Amino acid sequence: MTPTPHAHGFSDDVELAGHIIDSLLLPKVLDEINALGGDYLSHDICIGHNRRDPSYVRLTVTAPTEECLERILVSIGQHGAVPVEHHDIRIEAADIAGAFPEGFYATTNEPTEIRFGGKWIPVDRQEMDCGITLDPASGRARCVAMADVKIGDRIVVGRLGTRVHPVGRGSGERRHSFGFMNSTVSSEKPKHLTVREIAEQMRRAAEGNGRILVVAGPAVVHTGSHELLSWLIRRGYVHVLFAGNALATHDIEQSFYGTSLGISMESGGSSDEGHEHHLRSINRIRRLGGIRQAVEQNLLTNGIMYECISHNVPFVLAGSIRDDGPLPDVITDSLVAQTEMRELVQGVTFCLMIATTLHSIAVGNLLPAWVKTVCVDINPATVTKLADRGTFQSIGLVTDVEPFLRILVQELGGTSP
Amino acid sequence: MTPTPHAHGFSDDVELAGHIIDSLLLPKVLDEINALGGDYLSHDICIGHNRRDPSYVRLTVTAPTEECLERILVSIGQHGAVPVEHHDIRIEAADIAGAFPEGFYATTNEPTEIRFGGKWIPVDRQEMDCGITLDPASGRARCVAMADVKIGDRIVVGRLGTRVHPVGRGSGERRHSFGFMNSTVSSEKPKHLTVREIAEQMRRAAEGNGRILVVAGPAVVHTGSHELLSWLIRRGYVHVLFAGNALATHDIEQSFYGTSLGISMESGGSSDEGHEHHLRSINRIRRLGGIRQAVEQNLLTNGIMYECISHNVPFVLAGSIRDDGPLPDVITDSLVAQTEMRELVQGVTFCLMIATTLHSIAVGNLLPAWVKTVCVDINPATVTKLADRGTFQSIGLVTDVEPFLRILVQELGGTSP
Amino acid sequence: MTPTPHAHGFSDDVELAGHIIDSLLLPKVLDEINALGGDYLSHDICIGHNRRDPSYVRLTVTAPTEECLERILVSIGQHGAVPVEHHDIRIEAADIAGAFPEGFYATTNEPTEIRFGGKWIPVDRQEMDCGITLDPASGRARCVAMADVKIGDRIVVGRLGTRVHPVGRGSGERRHSFGFMNSTVSSEKPKHLTVREIAEQMRRAAEGNGRILVVAGPAVVHTGSHELLSWLIRRGYVHVLFAGNALATHDIEQSFYGTSLGISMESGGSSDEGHEHHLRSINRIRRLGGIRQAVEQNLLTNGIMYECISHNVPFVLAGSIRDDGPLPDVITDSLVAQTEMRELVQGVTFCLMIATTLHSIAVGNLLPAWVKTVCVDINPATVTKLADRGTFQSIGLVTDVEPFLRILVQELGGTSP
Amino acid sequence: MTPTPHAHGFSDDVELAGHIIDSLLLPKVLDEINALGGDYLSHDICIGHNRRDPSYVRLTVTAPTEECLERILVSIGQHGAVPVEHHDIRIEAADIAGAFPEGFYATTNEPTEIRFGGKWIPVDRQEMDCGITLDPASGRARCVAMADVKIGDRIVVGRLGTRVHPVGRGSGERRHSFGFMNSTVSSEKPKHLTVREIAEQMRRAAEGNGRILVVAGPAVVHTGSHELLSWLIRRGYVHVLFAGNALATHDIEQSFYGTSLGISMESGGSSDEGHEHHLRSINRIRRLGGIRQAVEQNLLTNGIMYECISHNVPFVLAGSIRDDGPLPDVITDSLVAQTEMRELVQGVTFCLMIATTLHSIAVGNLLPAWVKTVCVDINPATVTKLADRGTFQSIGLVTDVEPFLRILVQELGGTSP
Repeated sequence: MTPTPHAHGFSDDVELAGHIIDSLLLPKVLDEINALGGDYLSHDICIGHNRRDPSYVRLTVTAPTEECLERILVSIGQHGAVPVEHHDIRIEAADIAGAFPEGFYATTNEPTEIRFGGKWIPVDRQEMDCGITLDPASGRARCVAMADVKIGDRIVVGRLGTRVHPVGRGSGERRHSFGFMNSTVSSEKPKHLTVREIAEQMRRAAEGNGRILVVAGPAVVHTGSHELLSWLIRRGYVHVLFAGNALATHDIEQSFYGTSLGISMESGGSSDEGHEHHLRSINRIRRLGGIRQAVEQNLLTNGIMYECISHNVPFVLAGSIRDDGPLPDVITDSLVAQTEMRELVQGVTFCLMIATTLHSIAVGNLLPAWVKTVCVDINPATVTKLADRGTFQSIGLVTDVEPFLRILVQELGGTSP
Repeated sequence: MTPTPHAHGFSDDVELAGHIIDSLLLPKVLDEINALGGDYLSHDICIGHNRRDPSYVRLTVTAPTEECLERILVSIGQHGAVPVEHHDIRIEAADIAGAFPEGFYATTNEPTEIRFGGKWIPVDRQEMDCGITLDPASGRARCVAMADVKIGDRIVVGRLGTRVHPVGRGSGERRHSFGFMNSTVSSEKPKHLTVREIAEQMRRAAEGNGRILVVAGPAVVHTGSHELLSWLIRRGYVHVLFAGNALATHDIEQSFYGTSLGISMESGGSSDEGHEHHLRSINRIRRLGGIRQAVEQNLLTNGIMYECISHNVPFVLAGSIRDDGPLPDVITDSLVAQTEMRELVQGVTFCLMIATTLHSIAVGNLLPAWVKTVCVDINPATVTKLADRGTFQSIGLVTDVEPFLRILVQELGGTSP
Repeated sequence: MTPTPHAHGFSDDVELAGHIIDSLLLPKVLDEINALGGDYLSHDICIGHNRRDPSYVRLTVTAPTEECLERILVSIGQHGAVPVEHHDIRIEAADIAGAFPEGFYATTNEPTEIRFGGKWIPVDRQEMDCGITLDPASGRARCVAMADVKIGDRIVVGRLGTRVHPVGRGSGERRHSFGFMNSTVSSEKPKHLTVREIAEQMRRAAEGNGRILVVAGPAVVHTGSHELLSWLIRRGYVHVLFAGNALATHDIEQSFYGTSLGISMESGGSSDEGHEHHLRSINRIRRLGGIRQAVEQNLLTNGIMYECISHNVPFVLAGSIRDDGPLPDVITDSLVAQTEMRELVQGVTFCLMIATTLHSIAVGNLLPAWVKTVCVDINPATVTKLADRGTFQSIGLVTDVEPFLRILVQELGGTSP
Repeated sequence: MTPTPHAHGFSDDVELAGHIIDSLLLPKVLDEINALGGDYLSHDICIGHNRRDPSYVRLTVTAPTEECLERILVSIGQHGAVPVEHHDIRIEAADIAGAFPEGFYATTNEPTEIRFGGKWIPVDRQEMDCGITLDPASGRARCVAMADVKIGDRIVVGRLGTRVHPVGRGSGERRHSFGFMNSTVSSEKPKHLTVREIAEQMRRAAEGNGRILVVAGPAVVHTGSHELLSWLIRRGYVHVLFAGNALATHDIEQSFYGTSLGISMESGGSSDEGHEHHLRSINRIRRLGGIRQAVEQNLLTNGIMYECISHNVPFVLAGSIRDDGPLPDVITDSLVAQTEMRELVQGVTFCLMIATTLHSIAVGNLLPAWVKTVCVDINPATVTKLADRGTFQSIGLVTDVEPFLRILVQELGGTSP
């Protein structure tokens, strides 16, 4: 590229197409150009007749220096504004294991393409906050996590030659997206309809048109909802489960002792020895070698983990520093757990996150933007944080876990226990 | 009383009986004596064999001055520690309308007696933060609000000659009260059992053994739960309803327009004109003269207010400064509203507060401590505040309104809409 | 208007100018047209060169029926899209006192004009959820609350002939408005700068370029911040104060007893008699006749209310149903209180709301959109609710009252007590 | 032990001494006896004259079966009720690595002794949810985590022969403990005094009378408080720091780029490239080999991590599944991180937890009950959870991080930046 020196500096032409008005891409691009010190002139504006029709605009971007112009071009490229003339990516070989070259291209969770040898190549295993590595032999590109970089990996550097196709935030599907943006976290909205919609999504996925990931925190057991989640697993509504030591431990505790964190599931009361139940449950499983062994020896005969083992639902129990024990099935190394989770999210089309901030954000980081994600928590802060950390596609549902799952099961045809 | 001048000052003997260990009364009394500068010697301690048996202790309280001793005696009297020798109350005539004499006895919400003419008289219409007025002719005593004092009313002054019988906080009824105290506000406990208990209480009351007061905020309508509350009214589970302009307005809005605050109850979406619906609803009712007129003219044909009118359930709509309109049925003067509410709480045995901080605290202030109160809110702060303001008898349930009511209705035999 | 019958129905031309891209007005207008069943064709689009330059678009709106077209035109008129050909308003005389004619124009809090006799007239006393009354003699228009309508008042009906000029939400002033929209309620952002900005705004207003309204809840006293607010009043940073019985009562309680709700301001501890202090404080003021009398008789010598009286800062203490007493200065009728507040908000340029949900929303309803409003609360829900109820111009600050005021006072040159 | 067969079954005598009334130990013991199916008779009750004097009670506990009696005795032993006749512990050799024998004694965080060879031996490294291992050679006992058990370790089994000395929850130090218990989580209390107290504790520890552990979440950086925490480290008020990848990353990001999670620390605004800053910061440190290398090469010249390196303050950065990168200094295996943390908490006398739920609970689990712990968070749920999980000794402070640290620094004599 040799940007044209312009009266006021350097300039280049870009075009932007799609739902650029209602998805706010155009305002963002214009804002970005000004924020980075540039200016623009608009030509050939065409606004779609309705929400489904794409709009189009062609802009001449000008900047005082060539560096400034490049910075603007790469920045607005992330919103889908592509130069009318295209450029190939730059590639650098990794010189250090577990780190990118300086200036590496940092990924988003949106569908991304890179231009190599004059052709646009889609990037596989899209995930935010990674780099892109290209295999020149096969001509295939994919996201790679920082820790997984090997010396010699061909890493994309800079943003020229990349383009993203932002997933419309509900454009075309959801009317009144503005109201929607405000209402996600509210607890004062009619929610029954949303539960019904979630049920519908899960039914479709269970019928073979998708793959459902459930991410769940221990409150599922504390609130007495384990039987509801067990039902969902039994009936094929859960294809992958991610959780931590706590969920599995208290699930096994309720099976062994009828308590969760020592609180009786029957009476809601606590007994003094109860606080030890979870520890004794972990110890027993450690003595047996693992959860599968406990199921196979008919010692663990119900609950969430039992159903996962019985119905071959793969799970990841990721460790944390607050774990007691932990259970032998827990992956204590966070990098190993991430790698395992990365494998299992492939093909996931719908993700239900229930009552867990840490795991929700961790999984949100791994999922591409086009996976429908519903985050259910009684604490509005969890839902807000998820969106703040970049998982924009999530629908937040501020509600209580137990009745949420109870009504979800009813909607799916189950009779509540 | 002539308290005995003691080696270290003045002293008097008190006795304390009942569930004084597990209800924490004894620790509080001992703490109080020390905190106010006194000392004690314990005699005749007898601990009940189990939770149902009363305990008993007799203490000699000593203090450096007579004033200090009196202060201690009146203070611990509020926890049920009564002097072995009794004294009559002091009475003063009100010299100003709408105010008590200085030094008036300020009531709690616990059962209270005053000693007059050597006899213990129970106080009627028990309510916290009032005074006590005695009618010497009839010999009857009752609580009186500050604003209701008339010149010449005989007002109890000081605390000598009064005694309260603290309602055991669940003692004898609920095992493990300590766990309970911590868990009220938690959202991480099994709650289905609590809903079942509430249903049981309401069923008993509906069968003629009680009177149910429901206090509800507009979120009942915003969350699409109005049909559930309507069902409860229709089936006789609500004997009195307290709410504000907002609940009634949005209830009528959903009946007239199918929206609440402009949000569709059907689709969850908002339309641009929707934000006017509540205003147009109020205006229409104002044009008709009131809610009853709208029902009688077949213009209001469903919803919470419709059911109240149709089933002769008395209600108070109390005004607030954030009201639009308001509806003609709203009592805009807060003192008039309080008086009206005071009348209607007489005989109430069970109070269900749903999603309203202001009204919950206001009603909590009016209720005697022996009325079972359940406060349901998704925000733990509301539940905490209620207890902080002195309504200790309330059971807080941190959960979501709509599923709570849905499951309550199911427990009472209704099929959810 | 005789809208042109079009190939696909009826049509009319509208134009939209200003910051229509970055303020999201254009997307909203286009969305609205489709949502209401219409279609559009865009002409003459001109995008401003930068954030400060206005953009412009002219649209032909089409609809299947004349009614549908009118509905669209009035709806998008609220976003500033005005027909190229103009129309006068329709007026109807009020037939009932305290109610509008059906079909009345319901106001927003944005600057509004009505077209009468071919001329655009600005509406005085702009306030949301009111009607507009026109005095044909003087040709002046102003907002009127429903309850204040008198028979014969000339009320604007329908929306044709009205136009609003939406206040840009920070456009031109604040870069990156999108981030801003998401971040208002977050507690995880650097806030010191915001406090500095608030201080700057208050300094300018105190220097004669504005009028500051403070709306405060009792937590100001409970948290021991009364001395900080007193300092602000003393130094001229508060021109009007709105609060309730609780703030004034606990402020007077801390002056009389050194406690707030019985909690010592010195030690943080509670004493058993303390819970009566607020009641005794109210009673004493009632015996004196009012707060001013207490100040004049040198009985109330410090605190928030003392400073208001001493520095002639007008205040409204609005009553609520949870009030004890109340103080004689409290306006117990909510309509009377609203009227009083309406008078005092005239001329206000900056509003600081501290730790009160009820009063914040009530005052937010009364303020026009161009008054800068900062809502400070430790509970994110309060801030969210304020925006949900239409007070979009408010900047929410999720932080703790006491340290917020402490640092604000420091920024204004005070030394913290 | 051969418990006496009693008229109603089996019986044994226990005694309970100390602050058994006001610390609620007696009510708990009595409650426990009944809850587990036993009965009691009280003798020799002696109530202390004041809060500082110990009380004493001797109880005969009866139960229908010998098993029931044993269960009661071990249970009430955890509250300090010890049999008048003593018994030695039972010991079993671990048969499996990483697991206890069934029936192992599960520890609390209270000071514990075991009776071995007729003598009471104190348990070292007290920590909740561990086992106790005894070295018969040296006669020393210490807590051991489940995962650290080696085959052949001598593990205490059952609870007979153990006794705990519950740390009075503030008894004798803090007046009005009951109010205190309720008020911890409230945001509506005067907090300035608490900050002053914390400063006083830290000053004493910094003067050589203690060891301060700070546990901090990334909000410390997001809110712009890193310079305040840096000051505390520089001045010797932090002896150990526990955090995660996020705190260190955003601290380094602010040093490298002036942003935290892409939000400018100066202006509060966000820039589009900013979201990559944390990733580029991690990558740079990975390229250098670690934080120390960055400091030594003068590339990292300020901030929290810089001060830790410069002032030889040991730290643990514990990994989690939501980490990007992570930094090379992060311990990704949670068991390794726990072991490292266990070493560093030895000798800690004061622990300040700031804005992190996960790390606060993890560290709370590791600390003995006698370490003073203050948990500061704007979210009341974090504080509540900490206490719910057994860290009773923590004082919760619901407030905003940045102003909290600002005022803490001021109290310690610093001038705020």
